[in-house]
Amino acid sequence: MKLLRVGPAGGERPVLLSDDGVHHDLSGLTGDIDGRFLATGGPARAARALAAGTLPELAVPDGTRVGAPVARPGKIVCVGLNYRDHAAETGAAEPDEPVLFMKAPNTVVGPHDTVRVPRGSTRTDYEVELAVVLGGTARYLDSPEQARDLVAGYAISNDVSEREFQLDRGGTWDKGKSCETFNPLGPWLVTADEVGDPQDLGLRLWVDGELRQNGTTKDMIFSVAHVIWYVSRFMVLEPGDVINTGTPAGVALGRPDAPYLRAGSVVELEIDGLGRQRQVCEDAE
Amino acid sequence: MKLLRVGPAGGERPVLLSDDGVHHDLSGLTGDIDGRFLATGGPARAARALAAGTLPELAVPDGTRVGAPVARPGKIVCVGLNYRDHAAETGAAEPDEPVLFMKAPNTVVGPHDTVRVPRGSTRTDYEVELAVVLGGTARYLDSPEQARDLVAGYAISNDVSEREFQLDRGGTWDKGKSCETFNPLGPWLVTADEVGDPQDLGLRLWVDGELRQNGTTKDMIFSVAHVIWYVSRFMVLEPGDVINTGTPAGVALGRPDAPYLRAGSVVELEIDGLGRQRQVCEDAE
Repeated sequence: MKLLRVGPAGGERPVLLSDDGVHHDLSGLTGDIDGRFLATGGPARAARALAAGTLPELAVPDGTRVGAPVARPGKIVCVGLNYRDHAAETGAAEPDEPVLFMKAPNTVVGPHDTVRVPRGSTRTDYEVELAVVLGGTARYLDSPEQARDLVAGYAISNDVSEREFQLDRGGTWDKGKSCETFNPLGPWLVTADEVGDPQDLGLRLWVDGELRQNGTTKDMIFSVAHVIWYVSRFMVLEPGDVINTGTPAGVALGRPDAPYLRAGSVVELEIDGLGRQRQVCEDAE
Repeated sequence: MKLLRVGPAGGERPVLLSDDGVHHDLSGLTGDIDGRFLATGGPARAARALAAGTLPELAVPDGTRVGAPVARPGKIVCVGLNYRDHAAETGAAEPDEPVLFMKAPNTVVGPHDTVRVPRGSTRTDYEVELAVVLGGTARYLDSPEQARDLVAGYAISNDVSEREFQLDRGGTWDKGKSCETFNPLGPWLVTADEVGDPQDLGLRLWVDGELRQNGTTKDMIFSVAHVIWYVSRFMVLEPGDVINTGTPAGVALGRPDAPYLRAGSVVELEIDGLGRQRQVCEDAE
């Protein structure tokens, strides 16, 4: 099942996109697609209502804004250097255990919203990533197997990064990861049952039509289930929380010509089964 | 003015503590003490209602739980190595610009709640810090002076840290900063007007009755106003967000005998004008 939120920022309406391409209004079923909805069987209720024919169809005219498919998460945990080829291109050693950092939750925007190049930035970079959205609470899980039942679904994430802020300004990576608009998410939250094996998805990213990243989640060093299990030993993951699971090779940081984003750059992202994003960059006013 | 939240976790009631030591129920004025309340003149409305005598008194019997004085923040930004003596004791160089990291918002607990020593932890540490709670939005501020009007108030924060997770497990510091119960906050949010100069407050922390930290915010490398201005260049701070502004010397990490916290340890914290915290540690089940 594909869940999404359409409408102006802050006023999105919850929607189900059925296999026949029809949008159905979920407003009668839930106020929003958020942690509470995901933790209380909301997707199953939506599926039953769809099957029963009680969900009203919703016209979504071309040009309607699509928001992030879940309301603002409680936290965004990110995994660094989780693809061998990306670790190599950044000159980093392959990690022995997952490298974690955080992104401010108010970086989340819709999949086609503008990405703002921060003031003073010269090294704004892109990262296509498989985002995992939690549907349950993960605390001291016994094993990666336990993690599987806690995944509500998956979405495309662009883990936008400012490399100077991240690497050359002291302190942790967080400084270059939390600028406004730095986490386009969506268009859909695709439920785990529909995605199937999360370790067999192609990920692609283009800038101005040029293919820059072309990887597969098969090449993750630490699998989705491993990451959730691992994170649960250090913090409590809650329904609606987002994990960005790392990016494959091809980011500007890893290319000899360092083709960073600037005002006017067009970024497009795609993951098998999860749809497509498109962002136009502009300078932060 | 002192604002607080009393009652069971998740069911706290907003309260004003007046200068004569009487608790007044704010439930008729606001559902909670949160970013919305702080951003929309809530404290001023509460002050007017107190002066007009329209706030009902509230009995708060001994033993009543006190929650964190603000509802769960959108984010917690922390400043590392912001006191010269603490930077020295950890063997780190004095930073040229603020070192930033993040703490998961669901680490926030009440000022007297149990602190859980994480499973597998051998180096759980304490850090008394001045917490700043935002009352407005800070985005690309022009100057530190602009930051002053955006502070709703101050509180005591214990930035509990697991040093092995933070320093020896790969990745950023976040891994050792976000364990459950790792951010006791409160007891009060003391409004900025009542605190006066935030750069002239004594901070003290005891473990099992032994004074371990005894500093003053005069010794901060970067002032509260500087930090807010600085952070606003990298991310958007929102009402209700919390900044932990760093800790003075005396943490277990910096002591030759490395007296880390363990089950049964009693931690007490105090900042001039901001009240007192007391936590008992236990092992995470």
